Amino acid sequence: MSLSLDQLNQANRADFTALLDGIYEHSPWVAEAAWTKRPFRSLAHLKRALTEAVREAGLEAQLGLIRAHPELAGKAAMAGTLTAESTNEQSRAGLTHCTPEEFAKLQQLNADYKTRFSWPFILAVRGPRGLGLTRQEIIATFERRLQHPPDVERAECLRQIDRIAEIRLNDKFGFVPTLGNQVWDWAEQLARHSEPEYAQRGELTVTYLTEAHQACSRELVAWMRECGFDKVEVDAVGNVVGRYHAAVPGARSLLTGSHFDTVRNGGKYDGRLGIFVPMACVQALHAQGRRLPYGIEVVGFSEEEGQRYKATFLGSGALIGQFDPAWLDQRDADGVPMREAMARAGLRPENIPSVRRKADDYLGFVEVHIEQGPVLHELDLPLGVVTSINGGVRFVGEVIGLASHAGTTPMNRRRDAAVAVAELALYVERRAAADGDSVGTIGQLQVPNGSINVVPGRCRFSLDLRAPTNEQRDRLVADVLAELAALCERRGLGYTLEETMRASAAPSHPQWQARWEAAVDRLGLPIFRMPSGAGHDAMKLHELLPQAMLFLRGGNGGISHNPLETITNDDAQLCVEAFMHLLEDLAKDHA
Amino acid sequence: MSLSLDQLNQANRADFTALLDGIYEHSPWVAEAAWTKRPFRSLAHLKRALTEAVREAGLEAQLGLIRAHPELAGKAAMAGTLTAESTNEQSRAGLTHCTPEEFAKLQQLNADYKTRFSWPFILAVRGPRGLGLTRQEIIATFERRLQHPPDVERAECLRQIDRIAEIRLNDKFGFVPTLGNQVWDWAEQLARHSEPEYAQRGELTVTYLTEAHQACSRELVAWMRECGFDKVEVDAVGNVVGRYHAAVPGARSLLTGSHFDTVRNGGKYDGRLGIFVPMACVQALHAQGRRLPYGIEVVGFSEEEGQRYKATFLGSGALIGQFDPAWLDQRDADGVPMREAMARAGLRPENIPSVRRKADDYLGFVEVHIEQGPVLHELDLPLGVVTSINGGVRFVGEVIGLASHAGTTPMNRRRDAAVAVAELALYVERRAAADGDSVGTIGQLQVPNGSINVVPGRCRFSLDLRAPTNEQRDRLVADVLAELAALCERRGLGYTLEETMRASAAPSHPQWQARWEAAVDRLGLPIFRMPSGAGHDAMKLHELLPQAMLFLRGGNGGISHNPLETITNDDAQLCVEAFMHLLEDLAKDHA
Repeated sequence: MSLSLDQLNQANRADFTALLDGIYEHSPWVAEAAWTKRPFRSLAHLKRALTEAVREAGLEAQLGLIRAHPELAGKAAMAGTLTAESTNEQSRAGLTHCTPEEFAKLQQLNADYKTRFSWPFILAVRGPRGLGLTRQEIIATFERRLQHPPDVERAECLRQIDRIAEIRLNDKFGFVPTLGNQVWDWAEQLARHSEPEYAQRGELTVTYLTEAHQACSRELVAWMRECGFDKVEVDAVGNVVGRYHAAVPGARSLLTGSHFDTVRNGGKYDGRLGIFVPMACVQALHAQGRRLPYGIEVVGFSEEEGQRYKATFLGSGALIGQFDPAWLDQRDADGVPMREAMARAGLRPENIPSVRRKADDYLGFVEVHIEQGPVLHELDLPLGVVTSINGGVRFVGEVIGLASHAGTTPMNRRRDAAVAVAELALYVERRAAADGDSVGTIGQLQVPNGSINVVPGRCRFSLDLRAPTNEQRDRLVADVLAELAALCERRGLGYTLEETMRASAAPSHPQWQARWEAAVDRLGLPIFRMPSGAGHDAMKLHELLPQAMLFLRGGNGGISHNPLETITNDDAQLCVEAFMHLLEDLAKDHA
Repeated sequence: MSLSLDQLNQANRADFTALLDGIYEHSPWVAEAAWTKRPFRSLAHLKRALTEAVREAGLEAQLGLIRAHPELAGKAAMAGTLTAESTNEQSRAGLTHCTPEEFAKLQQLNADYKTRFSWPFILAVRGPRGLGLTRQEIIATFERRLQHPPDVERAECLRQIDRIAEIRLNDKFGFVPTLGNQVWDWAEQLARHSEPEYAQRGELTVTYLTEAHQACSRELVAWMRECGFDKVEVDAVGNVVGRYHAAVPGARSLLTGSHFDTVRNGGKYDGRLGIFVPMACVQALHAQGRRLPYGIEVVGFSEEEGQRYKATFLGSGALIGQFDPAWLDQRDADGVPMREAMARAGLRPENIPSVRRKADDYLGFVEVHIEQGPVLHELDLPLGVVTSINGGVRFVGEVIGLASHAGTTPMNRRRDAAVAVAELALYVERRAAADGDSVGTIGQLQVPNGSINVVPGRCRFSLDLRAPTNEQRDRLVADVLAELAALCERRGLGYTLEETMRASAAPSHPQWQARWEAAVDRLGLPIFRMPSGAGHDAMKLHELLPQAMLFLRGGNGGISHNPLETITNDDAQLCVEAFMHLLEDLAKDHA
């Protein structure tokens, strides 16, 4: 008999704690603390309350919670002294069937980890899909996390404990995140297509119009048809377009989607999540035989990352009429012109102009995307509502001083180029932080041919400055450039600076942003607003339609453009549910 | 009829200014200002007073002085409108005999220079020896100085004006710096010996026991004999040792000298000056038939720079018994063991232990050296008295953070390794400056494989910390390491740090330092005390004898280990005179 929210909402503190016994290992205080947050509007709300109880507990309580867990497949497992739950979960992960080598390796990792952190390694061995990690995955994660700074690793342990609790709660509630599983499984299946030289190393790389890219396109077409889209086609630039008709002919459509190309050795969710989530919604609508008062058009954009050719946003750009025919002559690393790659893929570039959309045909554009950053992960929030796609400016520069003897040049007679860039770096950090939502980065920094005993005469650096509006970005840039000029003047140094990129900000349309906020609230989750630091297809559609984005948190610190990029099936489920809420609200508005 | 100091000291302001007419181009205000500093104890004192008058004038007066000079070999020269003095000096430099190409080049440089700095290029074309620079030297200097920051170049123009004034004063006083010329000429002659691959590029490289090195040794032996040394020999480690006996047998000796090996593509004065200056003194004593109550032993140390083999200070080290026989097996870049190099040079390494000196045989050790730094040059002081040879510690390290997306990682969620090193760099600058005479340098700085849009996860750096005493150095090191630990802790970063070198400080012996101070004072020059940031042979002798060093300023910003290293004959003259004063004072003490 499954547990229900009603039962929990009506229970007194003691009953509540008893009902949640075993969710947090030997730590009834977590449930006790969460009890005060009743009533819970959803299972997600309950999970969030439990997470908050752990986060709001002191360091000692948190370490106590971590230490309440047994060592992973350690001596305890061999001696049969693990708690039942843990044994069950570790057994599912196959940890009770280790080879002697794997067992020895795990024992060594356990010992090293304990020495470094003084608490046991915690890992939700049932993993992001709930089906169990492989022993190889577990060992790799163990090795990677051994390198973490202690505070990062402590927080990661708490997150793994939350994930263990989430899976246990799902079991207790008899809840299966069916839509999230579908999204997760699509992502896995699509990731089986990778360019051969990367595939052989187990890496995912899908760049514009390669064999792997066309295989992905075919899969998407097939899946969209299975989902019940009325019309599925590949357009002249390679976008996969699925249309789910409105209840009445001639109604406008909601445009949504994201890209299915990847960076080299990238992740499985960057872009693709934004195709799968609306696909899952259409699948559900179709299964219910439902039509909305507006059409749904899901586009799998063929190109966004600019990996094979220099041009970027080929897919979404084409929808707003931004395709420069000169790009057709660009060549890839093997010398293949884009024109030829398109011909080989059966695309007709002469038809690209017809891909352009008319604003009147659409209500707006929404895009779901994995965050590609640490914010939601660190705040333990599954979803974030994007306020703006940041505008950015990039520079490369060099400060020029006078190289001199590190021993014989007194501090007050130096013209040290590196210390000047150091001063700039700290200013950028301070100035960007003062805005709250601006970011500034010196990612490249080098004293060319630096010697240990020579005061640096030159120091090269890059500068990347971004903010949610062009005005805020331009104030940031002006202040940073003024500081560079002032500190070089004060220090008697020269400098060069070259602007290498400038991109406009794309603030979310307030009404559409409000729709995402309402959708997140309907899930029982807090509304968290954040800018997008990275560029997305929505930047392009912004020029044609009102747009707004929803972010899903990434695991592993939010890492992206990396094989460690990850999400959970439960988070994906929330994302699909949020999209469904948005569709419902929009239906009411256009009924 | 030559001008005399008495005439000047007795003149009223108007007469004084009239007597010095033409020394500073169309700028009688310089002499007028210097008049207040009478009476002048020496020509050096007068030169210093004139220099001070220029330095103490405001910026407008200084620019007026610079602009009072004609353009070098410019249109004015062709039209015959140059002042007589300038025409004469430019004629001596051969500037009136330029080829059309050289003239066009000079015109272009004049134009570029005027555009950049808005004043005419000033160069003492009679040069550091007073005999005139070649047109090639003039053009090279012009091109180099065009790259200066404006304030550096303005100061350089004033220094060149001082040098022009010095040469004009020498002419007016009928003064010839004979001893300085001798030192300067020895340096030129010795610099004709360079290793073939460097010689063909016009570069000076003399490393331990090469053909060029042995040629230098033979020259030194011959010159010492010509100077009147009683006994000249090459010892088992290759040092050239000249002994000038005392008035009475059995008296102790003053030990002095420096090294004659060079770094690759080095300067002509680094080390060698400290051999030539006492040689000039012995030459003068011998010419007068004078003996002092103590002997003088001048050592040309065969090796200090550690260029051909890893071991350094082989020459001075041998005098204090520091020669590790294991070094004999070290190989140079061509695989030649040191043992073989010594055999080829006719040295007998088995006799190296006999090179060791007994402290009782000596009064002490003094060393003259070019400063190898900018201090005396910037302060317009020919001589500086060394208070200590700084002790130093070197480290290489790396800060380890987390690489993350520069767009999506908010400022308060970063673990930016480069910003941490930036913070350290500014701390090192501040902390070393607070001591006044400590120095701290981050000479190597690099974000490995940094990307413009990635927050640096790693940043490598070097650290070079020096101070006049071991205690001061150790406090500096402790503070810097504590700051590194604290800022990494605060920023949640890890780091590695490896000590790669540690050298003890060698403070000057107070009595011997006082002797140098008295000698400088006797010249009518201000006593300026300074630590030595670089290591010298005196560091080694410090372990055996009381020691103290005298620094001579270097031109071209004090640059060393570089072909631009330079001195003037007048400065060399002051250096020899100071050494003579020290010898005289020492004679009184031991009469």
